[in-house]
Amino acid sequence: MKIDFKSAVQRLQNCDDVLILTHANPDGDTLGGAFALLQGLRQRGKRAKMHTDAPIPPRYAFLAAGCAEDCFDEAYIISVDVADKKLLGGKTQALYGDRVDLSIDHHGTNRMFAKETYVESDSASASEVVYLLLCALGVVITKPIADCLYTGCATDTGCFRYSNVTARTHRIASELISCGADHAQINTLMFETKKPGFLRLEQQVLSGMELYADGRICVLTITRTMLDDADCGDEDIDELVALSRQMEGVRIGATFKERPDGSYKLSLRTHEDVDASAICAVFGGGGHARAAGCSFSEDRDTALQRLLPVLRSFLKEGTAR
Amino acid sequence: MKIDFKSAVQRLQNCDDVLILTHANPDGDTLGGAFALLQGLRQRGKRAKMHTDAPIPPRYAFLAAGCAEDCFDEAYIISVDVADKKLLGGKTQALYGDRVDLSIDHHGTNRMFAKETYVESDSASASEVVYLLLCALGVVITKPIADCLYTGCATDTGCFRYSNVTARTHRIASELISCGADHAQINTLMFETKKPGFLRLEQQVLSGMELYADGRICVLTITRTMLDDADCGDEDIDELVALSRQMEGVRIGATFKERPDGSYKLSLRTHEDVDASAICAVFGGGGHARAAGCSFSEDRDTALQRLLPVLRSFLKEGTAR
Repeated sequence: MKIDFKSAVQRLQNCDDVLILTHANPDGDTLGGAFALLQGLRQRGKRAKMHTDAPIPPRYAFLAAGCAEDCFDEAYIISVDVADKKLLGGKTQALYGDRVDLSIDHHGTNRMFAKETYVESDSASASEVVYLLLCALGVVITKPIADCLYTGCATDTGCFRYSNVTARTHRIASELISCGADHAQINTLMFETKKPGFLRLEQQVLSGMELYADGRICVLTITRTMLDDADCGDEDIDELVALSRQMEGVRIGATFKERPDGSYKLSLRTHEDVDASAICAVFGGGGHARAAGCSFSEDRDTALQRLLPVLRSFLKEGTAR
Repeated sequence: MKIDFKSAVQRLQNCDDVLILTHANPDGDTLGGAFALLQGLRQRGKRAKMHTDAPIPPRYAFLAAGCAEDCFDEAYIISVDVADKKLLGGKTQALYGDRVDLSIDHHGTNRMFAKETYVESDSASASEVVYLLLCALGVVITKPIADCLYTGCATDTGCFRYSNVTARTHRIASELISCGADHAQINTLMFETKKPGFLRLEQQVLSGMELYADGRICVLTITRTMLDDADCGDEDIDELVALSRQMEGVRIGATFKERPDGSYKLSLRTHEDVDASAICAVFGGGGHARAAGCSFSEDRDTALQRLLPVLRSFLKEGTAR
């Protein structure tokens, strides 16, 4: 059931012994929002702990600074930035998928898997939503909380580049910096530090670039071999996914990333005349208007043959959103 | 002579028949700040016109939208984002270099070439300074003015990535978006549109990357031939200059760009422990703590042999700023 902002604040006021969940393959927003929420709840005198489906990638380890682990039986479960219970990850879904009490999210495509859902689909990040909730709860935004929330706001917007940014996003970033967020350090870590192998990966991926529909569709493919050769992980490829949409004339950028089991994750990035989330919905996925994703279990070429006609039809319709 | 904010506002209140100058090889900040100032002065009932040393690059043409040309004898000359009269460009310097009444700037290295200088060296962009001046003048920030100022704020900060960003920068960006700045469109144009030739250029420049001082110094070189082959201009290389600092472990990124006359422009980008502006001052240049520039009239290898010992000494000192 969808609930409004006031009800969400009430739930956070009244809950205790809280378990907080992120989505699998966690990014800066799900982790930043979750660690900020954890610290905010503790500041309000509650017990709170985190669970992620797999260990937190090293590049996001700083978000956990100052969040000591805790051990207790959870009485209330909150997910942050999770649009669908299957996105919790296999083990987490099995354990908690049907037991989430409150989903705090910013995906218009949220599947309402939780008992109650507070979703702001116009929000650029889940961290932006968490910030507003924490402020309403009377939480003091300490430097560690500000660092977490700034990371979420920055990473989900390509550092304030994307069209999901609003005046509110910048206002919140301003307030977080005033509260001590070390934006310069965080931006260096998140956006300005390229592994030596990354350039090799980028070169390899770009040399395999495919263009369709008179250059309006750009397809990139990242195989496990490429990732392994470059010593890069899934958390290093955001920039390549962003690149798929950046070539002059491209309206749809589609990046296939091979998963360890041989299936493919498709990340779709579009410009303002094409609805990425509607395209991914055709294949059982979802996301946002300009950034969405879905999965293919077949090999890449077969998947591409299924994908291309759909992309072409959306180009024609120009489904604005 | 340096003047304070209040005096700068008074000068803008009292001036008329204003000529506004930008620096040569104009970027989003000098042009955005100048076109915003022009519109603001006109809104206050004054005559104002622009002069640039060379035609405005096509990618910035949108900033001039709604700014009709005007013809009159100038009675007051203002430069925006110009730290030194020689940066006005050869023809402009000859015409106006010793006649600038007011320099509005954000470079701590401003050479005080104008009769009066209002410089905020802590400001991320000159456009941020112009915004505050226009607000103090009572100018209504219209959509075209907001577009100009947002462009300046975004381009001089790598879209809010760099360490020059402050809480104020984000607050102003928020207000500009509220005033109608089309941030999504501007960001797409400025940061998300790569010419087909750009990837070729990037690949060529990266394949010539040189690392020194155990990988702490990264040197990139962009020749005229590379630019011509890729059909790219000087305005397309900001991203490569930024890249010079992004390799893991690099503290100083130095990019040599060959000028049409065979001399070299050096663009320096550093991390927080190295003062770029102090290094460039050694060679007669200047700029900011993390981003600065200077010129070399000799060939690149000779220039590099002069530059490297200075870079190494600054690495050792770790001149923080």
